[in-house]
Amino acid sequence: MTGASGYVGSAAARALVEQGHEVHALGRSDPKIAGVIFHAADLFDGAQVARAIAAAKADNLLHLAWSVTPGEFWTNLNNCDWIGASLQLFRSFAERGGSRIVGVGSCAEYDWINSPLVEASSPIRPATLYGAAKASLWQVLEALGRQEGLSLAWGRLFFLFGPGEPRSKLVADATLSLLSGRRFATSSGFLRRDFLHIDDAGRALAELLASPVTGAVNIASGHCGLVSDVINEVARLTDGTSLVDYGARPKASGEPIELAADIARLRDEVGFTPTFNLASGLAHTVDWWRERNGVVL
Amino acid sequence: MTGASGYVGSAAARALVEQGHEVHALGRSDPKIAGVIFHAADLFDGAQVARAIAAAKADNLLHLAWSVTPGEFWTNLNNCDWIGASLQLFRSFAERGGSRIVGVGSCAEYDWINSPLVEASSPIRPATLYGAAKASLWQVLEALGRQEGLSLAWGRLFFLFGPGEPRSKLVADATLSLLSGRRFATSSGFLRRDFLHIDDAGRALAELLASPVTGAVNIASGHCGLVSDVINEVARLTDGTSLVDYGARPKASGEPIELAADIARLRDEVGFTPTFNLASGLAHTVDWWRERNGVVL
Repeated sequence: MTGASGYVGSAAARALVEQGHEVHALGRSDPKIAGVIFHAADLFDGAQVARAIAAAKADNLLHLAWSVTPGEFWTNLNNCDWIGASLQLFRSFAERGGSRIVGVGSCAEYDWINSPLVEASSPIRPATLYGAAKASLWQVLEALGRQEGLSLAWGRLFFLFGPGEPRSKLVADATLSLLSGRRFATSSGFLRRDFLHIDDAGRALAELLASPVTGAVNIASGHCGLVSDVINEVARLTDGTSLVDYGARPKASGEPIELAADIARLRDEVGFTPTFNLASGLAHTVDWWRERNGVVL
Repeated sequence: MTGASGYVGSAAARALVEQGHEVHALGRSDPKIAGVIFHAADLFDGAQVARAIAAAKADNLLHLAWSVTPGEFWTNLNNCDWIGASLQLFRSFAERGGSRIVGVGSCAEYDWINSPLVEASSPIRPATLYGAAKASLWQVLEALGRQEGLSLAWGRLFFLFGPGEPRSKLVADATLSLLSGRRFATSSGFLRRDFLHIDDAGRALAELLASPVTGAVNIASGHCGLVSDVINEVARLTDGTSLVDYGARPKASGEPIELAADIARLRDEVGFTPTFNLASGLAHTVDWWRERNGVVL
Protein backbone atom coordinates (compact mmCIF):
# COMPACT_ATOMS: atom_id res chain seq x y z
CA MET A 1 0.00 0.00 0.00
CA THR A 2 0.94 3.63 -0.38
CA GLY A 3 0.01 6.53 1.88
CA ALA A 4 0.24 4.41 5.07
CA SER A 5 1.58 7.40 7.00
CA GLY A 6 -1.48 9.47 6.21
CA TYR A 7 -4.77 10.02 8.01
CA VAL A 8 -6.81 7.54 5.93
CA GLY A 9 -3.83 5.37 5.06
CA SER A 10 -2.80 4.66 8.64
CA ALA A 11 -6.37 3.61 9.45
CA ALA A 12 -6.38 1.31 6.42
CA ALA A 13 -2.97 -0.10 7.35
CA ARG A 14 -4.12 -0.91 10.89
CA ALA A 15 -7.27 -2.54 9.53
CA LEU A 16 -5.28 -4.65 7.05
CA VAL A 17 -2.98 -5.85 9.82
CA GLU A 18 -5.98 -6.59 12.08
CA GLN A 19 -7.55 -8.58 9.25
CA GLY A 20 -4.45 -10.78 9.15
CA HIS A 21 -2.83 -9.59 5.92
CA GLU A 22 0.90 -9.21 5.33
CA VAL A 23 1.15 -5.46 4.82
CA HIS A 24 3.96 -3.66 3.00
CA ALA A 25 4.04 0.15 2.94
CA LEU A 26 5.75 2.07 0.12
CA GLY A 27 6.58 5.69 0.71
CA ARG A 28 9.02 8.30 1.89
CA SER A 29 8.49 7.86 5.62
CA ASP A 30 7.99 4.77 7.77
CA PRO A 31 4.41 4.76 9.08
CA LYS A 32 5.68 2.83 12.14
CA ILE A 33 2.55 0.74 12.47
CA ALA A 34 2.96 -2.63 14.17
CA GLY A 35 3.00 -5.38 11.56
CA VAL A 36 3.59 -3.08 8.60
CA ILE A 37 6.80 -3.71 6.62
CA PHE A 38 8.23 -0.48 5.29
CA HIS A 39 9.93 0.02 1.89
CA ALA A 40 11.41 3.49 1.39
CA ALA A 41 10.50 4.85 -2.05
CA ASP A 42 9.84 8.26 -3.54
CA LEU A 43 6.64 7.69 -5.54
CA PHE A 44 7.85 10.26 -8.08
CA ASP A 45 10.91 8.14 -8.84
CA GLY A 46 10.01 5.23 -11.12
CA ALA A 47 13.16 3.26 -10.36
CA GLN A 48 12.63 3.48 -6.59
CA VAL A 49 9.00 2.44 -7.00
CA ALA A 50 9.95 -0.55 -9.16
CA ARG A 51 12.54 -1.68 -6.59
CA ALA A 52 10.09 -1.36 -3.68
CA ILE A 53 7.40 -3.26 -5.57
CA ALA A 54 9.83 -6.03 -6.44
CA ALA A 55 10.84 -6.25 -2.77
CA ALA A 56 7.25 -6.30 -1.46
CA LYS A 57 6.10 -9.07 -3.86
CA ALA A 58 2.47 -8.14 -3.17
CA ASP A 59 -0.59 -9.54 -4.94
CA ASN A 60 -2.84 -6.62 -4.02
CA LEU A 61 -2.14 -2.90 -4.09
CA LEU A 62 -4.03 -0.23 -2.15
CA HIS A 63 -2.99 3.21 -3.40
CA LEU A 64 -3.75 6.05 -1.03
CA ALA A 65 -0.80 8.42 -1.41
CA TRP A 66 -1.73 11.87 -2.71
CA SER A 67 -1.14 15.49 -1.71
CA VAL A 68 -4.04 16.38 0.55
CA THR A 69 -2.84 19.49 2.40
CA PRO A 70 -6.06 20.98 3.84
CA GLY A 71 -7.18 24.10 2.04
CA GLU A 72 -4.71 23.54 -0.79
CA PHE A 73 -5.43 20.17 -2.26
CA TRP A 74 -8.51 21.22 -4.26
CA THR A 75 -6.46 23.48 -6.50
CA ASN A 76 -2.88 22.31 -6.00
CA LEU A 77 -1.18 21.94 -9.38
CA ASN A 78 0.59 18.87 -8.10
CA ASN A 79 -2.71 17.00 -8.47
CA CYS A 80 -1.46 16.69 -12.06
CA ASP A 81 1.81 15.13 -10.94
CA TRP A 82 -0.01 12.54 -8.84
CA ILE A 83 -1.79 11.19 -11.90
CA GLY A 84 1.53 10.39 -13.55
CA ALA A 85 3.08 9.02 -10.36
CA SER A 86 0.03 6.82 -9.73
CA LEU A 87 0.00 5.43 -13.26
CA GLN A 88 3.69 4.64 -13.00
CA LEU A 89 3.01 2.81 -9.73
CA PHE A 90 0.18 0.81 -11.31
CA ARG A 91 2.30 -0.15 -14.31
CA SER A 92 5.18 -1.23 -12.10
CA PHE A 93 2.81 -3.30 -10.00
CA ALA A 94 1.21 -4.92 -13.07
CA GLU A 95 4.60 -5.67 -14.63
CA ARG A 96 5.70 -7.32 -11.38
CA GLY A 97 2.70 -9.69 -11.62
CA GLY A 98 0.32 -7.94 -9.23
CA SER A 99 -3.28 -8.98 -9.68
CA ARG A 100 -5.55 -6.48 -7.93
CA ILE A 101 -5.45 -2.72 -7.45
CA VAL A 102 -7.72 -0.59 -5.30
CA GLY A 103 -7.32 3.12 -5.80
CA VAL A 104 -8.87 5.83 -3.71
CA GLY A 105 -10.99 8.59 -5.13
CA SER A 106 -13.51 11.02 -3.78
CA CYS A 107 -17.13 12.15 -3.83
CA ALA A 108 -15.59 15.22 -5.54
CA GLU A 109 -15.52 13.22 -8.77
CA TYR A 110 -19.32 13.37 -9.03
CA ASP A 111 -21.58 16.16 -10.20
CA TRP A 112 -22.83 17.43 -6.85
CA ILE A 113 -26.17 18.44 -8.27
CA ASN A 114 -27.30 14.87 -7.61
CA SER A 115 -27.98 13.20 -4.29
CA PRO A 116 -27.74 10.41 -3.35
CA LEU A 117 -24.63 9.72 -5.38
CA VAL A 118 -24.74 6.29 -7.01
CA GLU A 119 -21.61 4.74 -8.52
CA ALA A 120 -23.26 3.31 -11.62
CA SER A 121 -25.50 6.18 -12.57
CA SER A 122 -24.46 9.52 -11.08
CA PRO A 123 -22.62 11.65 -13.64
CA ILE A 124 -18.90 12.24 -13.17
CA ARG A 125 -18.44 15.99 -13.44
CA PRO A 126 -15.76 17.18 -11.04
CA ALA A 127 -15.85 20.87 -10.15
CA THR A 128 -12.23 20.96 -8.97
CA LEU A 129 -8.78 20.02 -10.21
CA TYR A 130 -8.51 17.50 -7.38
CA GLY A 131 -11.79 15.83 -8.37
CA ALA A 132 -10.83 15.87 -12.05
CA ALA A 133 -7.43 14.33 -11.32
CA LYS A 134 -9.01 11.53 -9.29
CA ALA A 135 -11.74 10.87 -11.87
CA SER A 136 -9.20 10.84 -14.69
CA LEU A 137 -6.89 8.50 -12.88
CA TRP A 138 -9.72 6.04 -12.37
CA GLN A 139 -10.72 6.30 -16.03
CA VAL A 140 -7.20 5.42 -17.18
CA LEU A 141 -6.73 2.78 -14.48
CA GLU A 142 -9.96 1.11 -15.58
CA ALA A 143 -8.78 0.96 -19.21
CA LEU A 144 -5.33 -0.22 -18.18
CA GLY A 145 -6.74 -2.94 -15.94
CA ARG A 146 -9.21 -4.16 -18.57
CA GLN A 147 -6.38 -4.42 -21.07
CA GLU A 148 -3.85 -6.02 -18.72
CA GLY A 149 -6.30 -8.35 -16.95
CA LEU A 150 -6.13 -6.74 -13.52
CA SER A 151 -8.89 -6.82 -10.95
CA LEU A 152 -9.70 -3.21 -10.04
CA ALA A 153 -11.76 -1.23 -7.60
CA TRP A 154 -11.97 2.44 -6.72
CA GLY A 155 -13.10 3.61 -3.31
CA ARG A 156 -14.77 7.02 -3.31
CA LEU A 157 -14.38 8.63 0.09
CA PHE A 158 -17.04 10.99 1.40
CA PHE A 159 -16.72 13.00 4.63
CA LEU A 160 -14.55 11.56 7.36
CA PHE A 161 -13.85 12.41 10.98
CA GLY A 162 -12.01 10.85 13.87
CA PRO A 163 -8.78 10.73 15.81
CA GLY A 164 -5.90 12.41 14.00
CA GLU A 165 -8.13 14.44 11.70
CA PRO A 166 -6.49 17.59 10.31
CA ARG A 167 -7.46 20.41 12.65
CA SER A 168 -9.04 22.56 9.99
CA LYS A 169 -11.75 19.95 9.35
CA LEU A 170 -15.19 20.32 10.90
CA VAL A 171 -15.22 17.79 13.74
CA ALA A 172 -11.61 18.41 14.81
CA ASP A 173 -12.10 22.18 14.62
CA ALA A 174 -15.34 22.09 16.64
CA THR A 175 -13.94 19.68 19.21
CA LEU A 176 -10.71 21.60 19.75
CA SER A 177 -12.52 24.94 20.00
CA LEU A 178 -15.15 23.73 22.42
CA LEU A 179 -12.78 21.68 24.59
CA SER A 180 -10.68 24.78 25.11
CA GLY A 181 -13.70 26.96 25.82
CA ARG A 182 -13.42 29.00 22.63
CA ARG A 183 -16.41 30.18 20.61
CA PHE A 184 -17.03 27.99 17.55
CA ALA A 185 -18.17 30.09 14.59
CA THR A 186 -19.90 28.06 11.90
CA SER A 187 -22.38 28.40 9.07
CA SER A 188 -26.07 27.71 9.57
CA GLY A 189 -25.54 23.93 9.86
CA PHE A 190 -28.49 23.02 7.66
CA LEU A 191 -26.41 21.21 5.04
CA ARG A 192 -26.65 17.42 4.99
CA ARG A 193 -23.51 15.31 4.75
CA ASP A 194 -22.48 11.70 5.26
CA PHE A 195 -19.79 11.41 7.95
CA LEU A 196 -17.83 8.19 8.47
CA HIS A 197 -15.42 7.50 11.31
CA ILE A 198 -11.85 7.20 10.04
CA ASP A 199 -11.39 3.71 11.51
CA ASP A 200 -14.46 2.54 9.63
CA ALA A 201 -13.14 4.14 6.43
CA GLY A 202 -9.87 2.25 6.92
CA ARG A 203 -11.73 -1.01 7.54
CA ALA A 204 -13.95 -0.43 4.51
CA LEU A 205 -10.92 0.05 2.25
CA ALA A 206 -9.22 -3.02 3.72
CA GLU A 207 -12.34 -5.11 3.15
CA LEU A 208 -12.74 -3.74 -0.37
CA LEU A 209 -9.14 -4.71 -1.14
CA ALA A 210 -9.68 -8.24 0.16
CA SER A 211 -12.98 -8.64 -1.71
CA PRO A 212 -13.43 -9.52 -5.40
CA VAL A 213 -15.63 -6.45 -5.95
CA THR A 214 -14.67 -4.41 -9.00
CA GLY A 215 -15.49 -0.88 -10.10
CA ALA A 216 -16.24 2.27 -8.14
CA VAL A 217 -17.53 1.86 -4.59
CA ASN A 218 -18.71 4.71 -2.36
CA ILE A 219 -17.05 4.63 1.06
CA ALA A 220 -19.55 6.22 3.43
CA SER A 221 -21.88 5.47 6.33
CA GLY A 222 -25.13 5.65 4.39
CA HIS A 223 -26.48 8.13 6.93
CA CYS A 224 -26.71 11.69 5.59
CA GLY A 225 -27.62 13.96 8.46
CA LEU A 226 -27.62 17.64 9.26
CA VAL A 227 -24.22 19.17 9.91
CA SER A 228 -25.84 20.85 12.92
CA ASP A 229 -26.56 17.39 14.38
CA VAL A 230 -22.82 16.67 14.26
CA ILE A 231 -21.91 20.01 15.84
CA ASN A 232 -24.64 19.75 18.48
CA GLU A 233 -23.42 16.30 19.50
CA VAL A 234 -19.81 17.51 19.75
CA ALA A 235 -21.08 20.47 21.82
CA ARG A 236 -23.02 18.15 24.12
CA LEU A 237 -19.98 15.89 24.59
CA THR A 238 -17.71 18.85 25.36
CA ASP A 239 -20.23 20.86 27.40
CA GLY A 240 -19.79 23.61 24.83
CA THR A 241 -23.32 24.17 23.57
CA SER A 242 -23.31 27.85 24.49
CA LEU A 243 -20.12 28.41 22.51
CA VAL A 244 -21.57 27.35 19.13
CA ASP A 245 -22.33 30.35 16.96
CA TYR A 246 -24.49 29.23 14.03
CA GLY A 247 -24.67 31.59 11.07
CA ALA A 248 -21.41 33.34 12.00
CA ARG A 249 -19.82 32.02 8.83
CA PRO A 250 -21.37 32.21 5.35
CA LYS A 251 -22.21 29.06 3.44
CA ALA A 252 -19.36 28.38 1.03
CA SER A 253 -20.40 28.94 -2.58
CA GLY A 254 -20.88 25.78 -4.57
CA GLU A 255 -21.78 23.76 -1.49
CA PRO A 256 -24.82 21.61 -2.24
CA ILE A 257 -27.58 21.27 0.36
CA GLU A 258 -27.25 17.50 0.48
CA LEU A 259 -24.47 15.08 -0.46
CA ALA A 260 -25.73 11.62 0.32
CA ALA A 261 -23.91 8.45 -0.67
CA ASP A 262 -25.66 5.36 -1.96
CA ILE A 263 -23.80 2.60 -0.08
CA ALA A 264 -25.54 -0.48 -1.52
CA ARG A 265 -22.32 -1.71 -3.14
CA LEU A 266 -20.22 -1.30 0.01
CA ARG A 267 -22.87 -2.89 2.24
CA ASP A 268 -24.20 -5.66 -0.01
CA GLU A 269 -21.28 -6.54 -2.29
CA VAL A 270 -18.29 -5.85 -0.07
CA GLY A 271 -20.34 -6.81 3.00
CA PHE A 272 -19.04 -3.93 5.11
CA THR A 273 -20.78 -2.80 8.32
CA PRO A 274 -19.48 0.27 10.19
CA THR A 275 -18.40 -0.23 13.79
CA PHE A 276 -19.40 3.27 14.83
CA ASN A 277 -22.60 5.18 14.39
CA LEU A 278 -22.44 8.97 14.46
CA ALA A 279 -22.95 9.23 18.26
CA SER A 280 -20.43 6.54 19.22
CA GLY A 281 -17.96 7.76 16.61
CA LEU A 282 -18.11 11.33 17.88
CA ALA A 283 -17.83 10.18 21.52
CA HIS A 284 -14.73 8.16 20.60
CA THR A 285 -13.26 11.14 18.75
CA VAL A 286 -13.94 13.70 21.49
CA ASP A 287 -12.44 11.31 24.07
CA TRP A 288 -9.34 10.97 21.89
CA TRP A 289 -8.86 14.74 21.67
CA ARG A 290 -9.64 15.15 25.37
CA GLU A 291 -6.95 12.63 26.33
CA ARG A 292 -4.45 14.63 24.30
CA ASN A 293 -5.57 17.85 25.94
CA GLY A 294 -2.19 18.83 27.31
CA VAL A 295 -0.41 18.13 24.03
CA VAL A 296 -2.59 19.54 21.32
CA LEU A 297 -4.60 22.42 22.74
CA MET B 1 3.08 23.51 -31.00
CA THR B 2 4.19 19.96 -30.37
CA GLY B 3 4.12 17.03 -32.77
CA ALA B 4 4.99 19.20 -35.80
CA SER B 5 7.02 16.34 -37.30
CA GLY B 6 4.03 14.02 -37.31
CA TYR B 7 1.36 13.23 -39.87
CA VAL B 8 -1.32 15.51 -38.42
CA GLY B 9 1.14 17.92 -36.84
CA SER B 10 2.99 18.74 -40.04
CA ALA B 11 -0.34 19.50 -41.75
CA ALA B 12 -1.29 21.75 -38.84
CA ALA B 13 2.11 23.47 -38.88
CA ARG B 14 1.84 24.22 -42.60
CA ALA B 15 -1.69 25.56 -42.10
CA LEU B 16 -0.58 27.80 -39.23
CA VAL B 17 2.25 29.22 -41.35
CA GLU B 18 -0.13 29.75 -44.29
CA GLN B 19 -2.54 31.56 -41.99
CA GLY B 20 0.25 34.00 -41.09
CA HIS B 21 1.10 32.92 -37.56
CA GLU B 22 4.56 32.83 -36.03
CA VAL B 23 4.98 29.11 -35.44
CA HIS B 24 7.37 27.52 -32.94
CA ALA B 25 7.75 23.74 -32.84
CA LEU B 26 8.83 21.93 -29.65
CA GLY B 27 10.08 18.38 -29.96
CA ARG B 28 12.94 16.01 -30.44
CA SER B 29 13.34 16.46 -34.20
CA ASP B 30 13.18 19.51 -36.42
CA PRO B 31 10.06 19.23 -38.62
CA LYS B 32 11.91 21.30 -41.28
CA ILE B 33 8.80 23.14 -42.42
CA ALA B 34 9.35 26.56 -43.98
CA GLY B 35 8.49 29.26 -41.48
CA VAL B 36 8.50 27.00 -38.44
CA ILE B 37 11.03 27.86 -35.72
CA PHE B 38 12.33 24.74 -34.02
CA HIS B 39 13.15 24.33 -30.31
CA ALA B 40 14.72 20.99 -29.40
CA ALA B 41 13.07 19.52 -26.30
CA ASP B 42 12.33 16.05 -24.99
CA LEU B 43 8.70 16.32 -23.88
CA PHE B 44 9.42 13.83 -21.10
CA ASP B 45 11.99 16.20 -19.61
CA GLY B 46 10.31 18.99 -17.67
CA ALA B 47 13.36 21.24 -17.61
CA GLN B 48 13.85 21.02 -21.37
CA VAL B 49 10.15 21.75 -21.92
CA ALA B 50 10.27 24.77 -19.62
CA ARG B 51 13.32 26.16 -21.46
CA ALA B 52 11.75 25.67 -24.89
CA ILE B 53 8.50 27.32 -23.77
CA ALA B 54 10.41 30.26 -22.35
CA ALA B 55 12.29 30.60 -25.64
CA ALA B 56 9.17 30.37 -27.83
CA LYS B 57 7.21 33.02 -25.82
CA ALA B 58 3.98 31.80 -27.41
CA ASP B 59 0.46 32.90 -26.50
CA ASN B 60 -1.23 29.83 -27.94
CA LEU B 61 -0.27 26.17 -27.65
CA LEU B 62 -1.36 23.38 -29.98
CA HIS B 63 -0.40 20.03 -28.46
CA LEU B 64 -0.29 17.15 -30.93
CA ALA B 65 2.65 15.03 -29.79
CA TRP B 66 1.70 11.50 -28.72
CA SER B 67 2.82 7.96 -29.51
CA VAL B 68 0.69 6.86 -32.42
CA THR B 69 2.58 3.88 -33.86
CA PRO B 70 -0.03 2.15 -36.06
CA GLY B 71 -1.31 -1.09 -34.59
CA GLU B 72 0.27 -0.35 -31.21
CA PHE B 73 -1.07 2.93 -30.03
CA TRP B 74 -4.46 1.62 -28.88
CA THR B 75 -2.88 -0.51 -26.16
CA ASN B 76 0.60 0.95 -25.73
CA LEU B 77 1.34 1.42 -22.03
CA ASN B 78 3.13 4.65 -22.84
CA ASN B 79 -0.30 6.24 -23.36
CA CYS B 80 -0.06 6.62 -19.57
CA ASP B 81 3.27 8.46 -19.83
CA TRP B 82 1.84 10.91 -22.35
CA ILE B 83 -0.79 12.06 -19.87
CA GLY B 84 1.93 13.11 -17.43
CA ALA B 85 4.13 14.67 -20.12
CA SER B 86 1.17 16.60 -21.55
CA LEU B 87 0.11 17.94 -18.15
CA GLN B 88 3.68 19.04 -17.47
CA LEU B 89 3.71 20.84 -20.81
CA PHE B 90 0.41 22.57 -20.04
CA ARG B 91 1.60 23.66 -16.61
CA SER B 92 4.87 25.02 -18.02
CA PHE B 93 2.95 26.91 -20.67
CA ALA B 94 0.47 28.35 -18.14
CA GLU B 95 3.28 29.37 -15.76
CA ARG B 96 5.03 31.16 -18.64
CA GLY B 97 1.89 33.27 -19.21
CA GLY B 98 0.36 31.34 -22.10
CA SER B 99 -3.30 32.09 -22.60
CA ARG B 100 -4.82 29.43 -24.86
CA ILE B 101 -4.29 25.69 -25.25
CA VAL B 102 -5.75 23.41 -27.89
CA GLY B 103 -5.20 19.72 -27.27
CA VAL B 104 -5.93 16.92 -29.66
CA GLY B 105 -8.11 13.98 -28.80
CA SER B 106 -9.99 11.38 -30.72
CA CYS B 107 -13.39 9.94 -31.58
CA ALA B 108 -12.10 6.98 -29.51
CA GLU B 109 -13.02 8.95 -26.39
CA TYR B 110 -16.74 8.49 -27.10
CA ASP B 111 -18.98 5.52 -26.51
CA TRP B 112 -19.21 4.18 -30.07
CA ILE B 113 -22.73 2.89 -29.51
CA ASN B 114 -23.91 6.36 -30.49
CA SER B 115 -23.88 8.00 -33.88
CA PRO B 116 -23.64 10.81 -34.78
CA LEU B 117 -21.21 11.74 -32.01
CA VAL B 118 -22.02 15.13 -30.52
CA GLU B 119 -19.53 16.91 -28.26
CA ALA B 120 -22.02 18.18 -25.72
CA SER B 121 -24.19 15.12 -25.34
CA SER B 122 -22.52 11.89 -26.47
CA PRO B 123 -21.23 9.89 -23.50
CA ILE B 124 -17.49 9.60 -23.01
CA ARG B 125 -16.81 5.90 -22.58
CA PRO B 126 -13.51 4.96 -24.22
CA ALA B 127 -13.06 1.28 -25.05
CA THR B 128 -9.27 1.51 -25.28
CA LEU B 129 -6.34 2.70 -23.20
CA TYR B 130 -5.58 5.28 -25.90
CA GLY B 131 -9.12 6.64 -25.79
CA ALA B 132 -9.13 6.65 -21.99
CA ALA B 133 -5.80 8.48 -21.85
CA LYS B 134 -7.04 11.17 -24.24
CA ALA B 135 -10.38 11.57 -22.45
CA SER B 136 -8.66 11.76 -19.08
CA LEU B 137 -6.15 14.30 -20.25
CA TRP B 138 -8.95 16.53 -21.50
CA GLN B 139 -10.84 16.15 -18.22
CA VAL B 140 -7.82 17.31 -16.22
CA LEU B 141 -6.89 20.02 -18.72
CA GLU B 142 -10.42 21.40 -18.51
CA ALA B 143 -10.25 21.60 -14.71
CA LEU B 144 -6.74 23.08 -14.83
CA GLY B 145 -7.76 25.69 -17.38
CA ARG B 146 -10.91 26.68 -15.49
CA GLN B 147 -8.84 27.13 -12.35
CA GLU B 148 -5.94 28.98 -13.98
CA GLY B 149 -8.04 31.11 -16.33
CA LEU B 150 -6.85 29.57 -19.60
CA SER B 151 -8.85 29.45 -22.80
CA LEU B 152 -9.09 25.80 -23.84
CA ALA B 153 -10.30 23.69 -26.72
CA TRP B 154 -9.96 20.02 -27.56
CA GLY B 155 -10.07 18.80 -31.17
CA ARG B 156 -11.42 15.26 -31.53
CA LEU B 157 -10.04 13.73 -34.70
CA PHE B 158 -12.06 11.17 -36.62
CA PHE B 159 -10.76 9.23 -39.63
CA LEU B 160 -8.09 10.87 -41.74
CA PHE B 161 -6.41 10.13 -45.04
CA GLY B 162 -4.04 11.86 -47.39
CA PRO B 163 -0.42 12.27 -48.42
CA GLY B 164 2.01 10.83 -45.92
CA GLU B 165 -0.56 8.60 -44.24
CA PRO B 166 0.92 5.58 -42.43
CA ARG B 167 0.83 2.71 -44.90
CA SER B 168 -1.22 0.42 -42.71
CA LYS B 169 -4.20 2.77 -42.82
CA LEU B 170 -7.09 2.14 -45.19
CA VAL B 171 -6.59 4.68 -47.99
CA ALA B 172 -2.80 4.37 -48.07
CA ASP B 173 -3.00 0.59 -47.96
CA ALA B 174 -5.61 0.40 -50.74
CA THR B 175 -3.79 2.95 -52.92
CA LEU B 176 -0.39 1.31 -52.58
CA SER B 177 -1.80 -2.17 -53.22
CA LEU B 178 -3.81 -1.17 -56.25
CA LEU B 179 -1.13 1.11 -57.76
CA SER B 180 1.28 -1.81 -57.67
CA GLY B 181 -1.27 -4.25 -59.12
CA ARG B 182 -1.65 -6.27 -55.92
CA ARG B 183 -4.95 -7.72 -54.71
CA PHE B 184 -6.53 -5.60 -51.96
CA ALA B 185 -8.18 -7.81 -49.37
CA THR B 186 -10.74 -5.97 -47.25
CA SER B 187 -13.82 -6.54 -45.14
CA SER B 188 -17.30 -6.14 -46.58
CA GLY B 189 -17.04 -2.35 -46.83
CA PHE B 190 -20.50 -1.69 -45.44
CA LEU B 191 -19.32 0.27 -42.41
CA ARG B 192 -19.88 4.03 -42.48
CA ARG B 193 -17.08 6.37 -41.46
CA ASP B 194 -16.26 10.06 -41.72
CA PHE B 195 -13.01 10.60 -43.64
CA LEU B 196 -11.25 13.96 -43.68
CA HIS B 197 -8.25 14.91 -45.82
CA ILE B 198 -5.16 15.47 -43.68
CA ASP B 199 -4.63 19.01 -45.03
CA ASP B 200 -8.17 19.88 -44.00
CA ALA B 201 -7.58 18.37 -40.56
CA GLY B 202 -4.46 20.53 -40.22
CA ARG B 203 -6.37 23.63 -41.31
CA ALA B 204 -9.24 22.84 -38.95
CA LEU B 205 -6.86 22.59 -35.99
CA ALA B 206 -5.09 25.80 -37.01
CA GLU B 207 -8.42 27.64 -37.29
CA LEU B 208 -9.59 26.19 -33.97
CA LEU B 209 -6.40 27.44 -32.31
CA ALA B 210 -6.87 30.93 -33.75
CA SER B 211 -10.56 31.03 -32.78
CA PRO B 212 -12.01 31.85 -29.36
CA VAL B 213 -14.02 28.59 -29.36
CA THR B 214 -13.71 26.60 -26.14
CA GLY B 215 -14.49 23.00 -25.24
CA ALA B 216 -14.47 19.82 -27.29
CA VAL B 217 -14.82 20.17 -31.06
CA ASN B 218 -15.16 17.26 -33.49
CA ILE B 219 -12.69 17.51 -36.36
CA ALA B 220 -14.35 15.73 -39.28
CA SER B 221 -15.90 16.33 -42.68
CA GLY B 222 -19.53 15.86 -41.64
CA HIS B 223 -19.98 13.30 -44.42
CA CYS B 224 -20.24 9.74 -43.14
CA GLY B 225 -20.20 7.42 -46.11
CA LEU B 226 -19.69 3.75 -46.83
CA VAL B 227 -16.11 2.54 -46.58
CA SER B 228 -16.79 0.73 -49.89
CA ASP B 229 -17.38 4.13 -51.52
CA VAL B 230 -13.87 5.17 -50.45
CA ILE B 231 -12.32 1.94 -51.71
CA ASN B 232 -14.28 1.98 -54.96
CA GLU B 233 -13.13 5.53 -55.67
CA VAL B 234 -9.49 4.63 -54.97
CA ALA B 235 -9.94 1.61 -57.25
CA ARG B 236 -11.41 3.77 -60.01
CA LEU B 237 -8.54 6.28 -59.73
CA THR B 238 -5.92 3.52 -59.82
CA ASP B 239 -7.65 1.32 -62.42
CA GLY B 240 -7.67 -1.40 -59.78
CA THR B 241 -11.34 -2.27 -59.46
CA SER B 242 -10.79 -5.94 -60.30
CA LEU B 243 -8.19 -6.23 -57.54
CA VAL B 244 -10.52 -5.32 -54.66
CA ASP B 245 -11.57 -8.40 -52.73
CA TYR B 246 -14.50 -7.49 -50.47
CA GLY B 247 -15.23 -9.88 -47.64
CA ALA B 248 -11.72 -11.35 -47.65
CA ARG B 249 -11.12 -9.92 -44.20
CA PRO B 250 -13.49 -10.27 -41.24
CA LYS B 251 -15.06 -7.23 -39.65
CA ALA B 252 -12.98 -6.34 -36.60
CA SER B 253 -14.85 -7.00 -33.39
CA GLY B 254 -16.10 -3.91 -31.62
CA GLU B 255 -16.32 -1.96 -34.86
CA PRO B 256 -19.63 -0.08 -34.95
CA ILE B 257 -21.65 0.06 -38.18
CA GLU B 258 -21.60 3.84 -38.27
CA LEU B 259 -19.36 6.47 -36.68
CA ALA B 260 -20.66 9.82 -37.80
CA ALA B 261 -19.44 13.13 -36.40
CA ASP B 262 -21.68 16.04 -35.63
CA ILE B 263 -19.66 18.96 -37.01
CA ALA B 264 -21.94 21.86 -36.10
CA ARG B 265 -19.34 23.34 -33.71
CA LEU B 266 -16.49 23.14 -36.22
CA ARG B 267 -18.60 24.53 -39.07
CA ASP B 268 -20.69 27.16 -37.28
CA GLU B 269 -18.54 28.26 -34.32
CA VAL B 270 -15.02 27.84 -35.70
CA GLY B 271 -16.27 28.66 -39.21
CA PHE B 272 -14.26 25.93 -40.88
CA THR B 273 -15.02 24.68 -44.39
CA PRO B 274 -13.04 21.76 -45.85
CA THR B 275 -11.12 22.40 -49.07
CA PHE B 276 -11.53 18.84 -50.29
CA ASN B 277 -14.57 16.65 -50.65
CA LEU B 278 -14.08 12.88 -50.65
CA ALA B 279 -13.58 12.62 -54.43
CA SER B 280 -11.14 15.51 -54.75
CA GLY B 281 -9.31 14.46 -51.60
CA LEU B 282 -8.85 10.92 -52.81
CA ALA B 283 -7.75 12.12 -56.27
CA HIS B 284 -5.16 14.39 -54.61
CA THR B 285 -3.95 11.52 -52.41
CA VAL B 286 -3.72 8.95 -55.19
CA ASP B 287 -1.78 11.47 -57.32
CA TRP B 288 0.61 12.05 -54.45
CA TRP B 289 1.33 8.34 -54.03
CA ARG B 290 1.56 7.89 -57.80
CA GLU B 291 4.20 10.66 -58.07
CA ARG B 292 6.24 8.87 -55.39
CA ASN B 293 5.87 5.55 -57.21
CA GLY B 294 9.55 4.92 -57.65
CA VAL B 295 10.39 5.75 -54.07
CA VAL B 296 7.73 4.13 -51.96
CA LEU B 297 6.39 1.11 -53.84
